[in-house]
Amino acid sequence: MIKFRSDMTVKLVQSMGDDAMVAKSARVSTGASSDSDAKTAGLINYLMRDRHGTPFEHNAFTFYVEAPIFVFREFMRHRIASYNEESGRYKELDPVFYIPDAERKLIQIGKTGAYEFVAGSDEQYRVTYDSIKESSVASYGYYQDMLNEGVAREVARAVLPVNIYSSMFVTMNARALMNFLSLRTMREGTKFPSFPQREIEMVAEMMENLWAEKMPITYETFNKNGRVAP
Amino acid sequence: MIKFRSDMTVKLVQSMGDDAMVAKSARVSTGASSDSDAKTAGLINYLMRDRHGTPFEHNAFTFYVEAPIFVFREFMRHRIASYNEESGRYKELDPVFYIPDAERKLIQIGKTGAYEFVAGSDEQYRVTYDSIKESSVASYGYYQDMLNEGVAREVARAVLPVNIYSSMFVTMNARALMNFLSLRTMREGTKFPSFPQREIEMVAEMMENLWAEKMPITYETFNKNGRVAP
Amino acid sequence: MIKFRSDMTVKLVQSMGDDAMVAKSARVSTGASSDSDAKTAGLINYLMRDRHGTPFEHNAFTFYVEAPIFVFREFMRHRIASYNEESGRYKELDPVFYIPDAERKLIQIGKTGAYEFVAGSDEQYRVTYDSIKESSVASYGYYQDMLNEGVAREVARAVLPVNIYSSMFVTMNARALMNFLSLRTMREGTKFPSFPQREIEMVAEMMENLWAEKMPITYETFNKNGRVAP
Amino acid sequence: MIKFRSDMTVKLVQSMGDDAMVAKSARVSTGASSDSDAKTAGLINYLMRDRHGTPFEHNAFTFYVEAPIFVFREFMRHRIASYNEESGRYKELDPVFYIPDAERKLIQIGKTGAYEFVAGSDEQYRVTYDSIKESSVASYGYYQDMLNEGVAREVARAVLPVNIYSSMFVTMNARALMNFLSLRTMREGTKFPSFPQREIEMVAEMMENLWAEKMPITYETFNKNGRVAP
Repeated sequence: MIKFRSDMTVKLVQSMGDDAMVAKSARVSTGASSDSDAKTAGLINYLMRDRHGTPFEHNAFTFYVEAPIFVFREFMRHRIASYNEESGRYKELDPVFYIPDAERKLIQIGKTGAYEFVAGSDEQYRVTYDSIKESSVASYGYYQDMLNEGVAREVARAVLPVNIYSSMFVTMNARALMNFLSLRTMREGTKFPSFPQREIEMVAEMMENLWAEKMPITYETFNKNGRVAP
Repeated sequence: MIKFRSDMTVKLVQSMGDDAMVAKSARVSTGASSDSDAKTAGLINYLMRDRHGTPFEHNAFTFYVEAPIFVFREFMRHRIASYNEESGRYKELDPVFYIPDAERKLIQIGKTGAYEFVAGSDEQYRVTYDSIKESSVASYGYYQDMLNEGVAREVARAVLPVNIYSSMFVTMNARALMNFLSLRTMREGTKFPSFPQREIEMVAEMMENLWAEKMPITYETFNKNGRVAP
Repeated sequence: MIKFRSDMTVKLVQSMGDDAMVAKSARVSTGASSDSDAKTAGLINYLMRDRHGTPFEHNAFTFYVEAPIFVFREFMRHRIASYNEESGRYKELDPVFYIPDAERKLIQIGKTGAYEFVAGSDEQYRVTYDSIKESSVASYGYYQDMLNEGVAREVARAVLPVNIYSSMFVTMNARALMNFLSLRTMREGTKFPSFPQREIEMVAEMMENLWAEKMPITYETFNKNGRVAP
Repeated sequence: MIKFRSDMTVKLVQSMGDDAMVAKSARVSTGASSDSDAKTAGLINYLMRDRHGTPFEHNAFTFYVEAPIFVFREFMRHRIASYNEESGRYKELDPVFYIPDAERKLIQIGKTGAYEFVAGSDEQYRVTYDSIKESSVASYGYYQDMLNEGVAREVARAVLPVNIYSSMFVTMNARALMNFLSLRTMREGTKFPSFPQREIEMVAEMMENLWAEKMPITYETFNKNGRVAP
């Protein structure tokens, strides 16, 4: 019954707006009316480069995300977004826990601000895998013990670890999303390096791909301009 | 060539989300799965009444608005929204000016916090009409004089009055919109009275009607609960 | 070495602004200059009642808070505030865990939107106490096992439960704080009932008391007006 | 009685927080305790460079500003700040108008995104000066005519031009202020060029100088890192 996962779920639930809307909202300022594709791309490049951020706000993307609580803890520090998350006060949480797969680099070297992650030994992976598995199972057992005794869900959940999966809807506009991506991914060509934890980066990369399809010109321009949010 | 208007323009450019999405995002918290229309209405009423505001944020509405600058000055004090407005730095502004029509109550009586507006005499309307018309024409003349002399638009615009029309795109979610409506309209059944200037109320009422069509259950519930934003 | 606590820590680190500043910023709108104490109180009451919220924003309060992660999870959903929290990525977390004391009502009765909490039996408290204690000790053991094996802190922390204590600095203005209090406390005389989890309410009550000393007129007026944030 | 000004007023009314508080709030994340001045400077540099913005939010600065309405129109587009401004609905506005002095470059050359301003001829300055002066006097006359007739202030103000002075209190934290400065000033050494209108830049420069005294290390670091807001 207890389930372990190493992956994240990200779905695009609904969206509004596109590259043309970026250009259209920018043109209200200038009164320009031309709207060929080439001019739209040029305009978007100018807006991104000179950090005119507001035209990238007339759009919205709602994602459904399943990820462990420690990912949501980092995610929800981004204040320019709307959240609704599963609540351990209102429902009994399902026994689904995150456990890193063998690809996840486990060993951190270097000092603050310049950490690097490298693969560990087989033994290190085995200890990690077993510890997380056993600990999750044990914690969930204590959770059940309290629930069976009639204790309130909001009290019993105290023992649940931050690798338990939760789910949420999150809605952001493209400007907020680019800010999120600039901080929570680490890709080639970025002007300002970030050091995201791999698990939130997994979520961010899936969001990035879904968004890129909806606003391909903005996306390409974001990359060309060093992945700096305007 | 100089034009006078007494009305506002509000168009719904694009939208995302509906009543069902409010319920869907709320249910991620509780894990409930039932989604009959009756249950959706009951859930939305509960959310509104108990001020669970976040489920009303997974939607977005972009409006195109034409209104005088003094309306935009009040509008943009609402910080939970995205704006792109026509810019007097980038383009020469068109000579379109607001002038109250004969229905607009011109006389304010009472003291701060309890003002009332009443109709003025014909003479008062005539003075208002003539003063605004003549002043607008004169100001625009000085604007043109400076532009003809080669002075920068951003300098010349200094003489333009706040009744000149501007245009903008504004994007808000339903929660921000309900907050806006609760402060910028004055309708029957409101729990907390507001005293909006009539001109921004004209814009707000048009936005309200457009939004009501997209989220009829939320709208009805908002009214039933005293027009208090959750 | 492992420590259990049932209480929260809240300290006021720094503050700016007071009741007089509320009145002063409101008076910039009206040009009124009188500033007797009686008039200040009357003005603040008018602002609160008619929901003129902005004059309550020209102040700031920085609190230092120690509380379990499940409290911080709720706290940080409040987006109009500034946060810096202890990070399990940068440091090894100390083994301090929350365990409810015997006063904490453990049993929840009623249905969603109308829950009530009542005291449990001695047996229920004993099961709760033992489960949380044993589970916390076990989880922290697994955390140490991974750290000792050289596994990165950000990976090892996955097993830590949400009742582990964390610490943060949070800065809010009085308007945001009143909104927080209206949702996270449940006191007599409130116009809109809330159902906060007791543990965040403990933090909120301590913040309320510290803030009340700095802005006594605003605080009294907040209570008199049904604890509705303006 | 009608007054013309070419300058802005900016006063620091109150402030909270300093460089040490930046370091202190950052250290809650890492648990480091050293706090020599050299280490504080090094830490602040690291936070600025790697765009860890939140430690710069535990402070607040309230400014009193007098500037023409067209400056406030741009200013209030910055949403991460708190505003209270003089209101033409609640009081009769004083006849104080902005007129550029002879230093203000009046002529704009180049194309969008690459404008440059150069000095105009004496004749161009004379036309500007006379036009703004005459237009302001005329507009204020019409305003008075309506007020004398008993027309409500909120209606009569429609004719007032955007160069009339207003006043406000604005409160921001250092992070928001750095963002504001990066967009509303154009100084040497900036990584991302901006093209602020000179009049808002005059206000921004005065704010910058007042803030720099309160947080000298943060200020120096902001400049060293290309004036990019973290």
